[in-house]
Amino acid sequence: MADIVSLQRLIEEFRKMPSVGLKSAERFAYYVLGLDDNQVKSLTDAINNAHEKIHTCSVCCNLTEDEKCNICNNPKRDSSVICVVENPRDITAFERTHEYRGVYHVLHGVMSPMNGIGPNDIRIKELISRLSDDTVNEVIMATNPTAEGEATAMYISKLLKPMGIKVTRLAYGVPVGSDLEYADEVTLSRALDGRQLL
Amino acid sequence: MADIVSLQRLIEEFRKMPSVGLKSAERFAYYVLGLDDNQVKSLTDAINNAHEKIHTCSVCCNLTEDEKCNICNNPKRDSSVICVVENPRDITAFERTHEYRGVYHVLHGVMSPMNGIGPNDIRIKELISRLSDDTVNEVIMATNPTAEGEATAMYISKLLKPMGIKVTRLAYGVPVGSDLEYADEVTLSRALDGRQLL
Repeated sequence: MADIVSLQRLIEEFRKMPSVGLKSAERFAYYVLGLDDNQVKSLTDAINNAHEKIHTCSVCCNLTEDEKCNICNNPKRDSSVICVVENPRDITAFERTHEYRGVYHVLHGVMSPMNGIGPNDIRIKELISRLSDDTVNEVIMATNPTAEGEATAMYISKLLKPMGIKVTRLAYGVPVGSDLEYADEVTLSRALDGRQLL
Repeated sequence: MADIVSLQRLIEEFRKMPSVGLKSAERFAYYVLGLDDNQVKSLTDAINNAHEKIHTCSVCCNLTEDEKCNICNNPKRDSSVICVVENPRDITAFERTHEYRGVYHVLHGVMSPMNGIGPNDIRIKELISRLSDDTVNEVIMATNPTAEGEATAMYISKLLKPMGIKVTRLAYGVPVGSDLEYADEVTLSRALDGRQLL
């Protein structure tokens, strides 16, 4: 099939998508060839619409089609607590708990010197500017428990502490329902360190 | 993110692609949101172009942008031997061997009563009509070695034999470079049945 230019181009486009190798890209391309005109229009319209309509919330940098996202727009949310996450998908995870009533701030990434991503490449500035009016009591750092997520949380907490804001971090420990036998040493020792009175 | 209509629609579109679950579809959607205008145009153009330009070869039903595919158009190919395959990707596999000099016929599927796919839903008619002018000496059945591939090969060979055409089937056996210890019983007994004099 290497001679069909338009097929090759489509396969290359699909290969650019995250975790898509040659075989998957080929399958996706053959899937497109099997669609009828309406289905192709539906796919390309969805791509164009999402790309055109979705941008970041003017307050928390979450994704939205409006000026503010539905969480920042909700008067019942407690805007004195800000949970700082790496990306919009993390918000979905927190919302599923139905526990958290504060608001969020999306960094859109973490600092990663190895990949040339510094503090100015993620939405730290926007977070700082939200804290200037003294209505925020607590900032919960909820970046991923990875080396880069940790470093980013530490960096931000050092910026915020001089401003007199309480900065907290998610608890580390063994996941609920997991098997201790398979817990890694670091998680287990963090769970020991953070042990609580029964 | 469940509230962002255009994002949900895009995720649903991606979920329709083969072997794409919710997590992958979400990753693809976020990938699209991260693209700039030119990159989005490049993706949608590739989809539209492939969909508009590619159709099946008027002779062998392989995919092509022209009236005939490059194999049917090649005068050096031996058009007296037709290798019957399930889909265009199988042709790529045969071409990689650089051994086969005949032509192909693409069925675009196999008969599958369980899924309601009968002989009229795949390109059997087109194969029969190619055999009417007495120039074809041999038809090699190269459908997949699955139950459905086998049944389709048997069905077609029963149609062709009364026409006095030699119908052959790919050899079964242990794959080159594999470990006999892990060969399944069926493959191994087929390899025994097909043993050849050294």
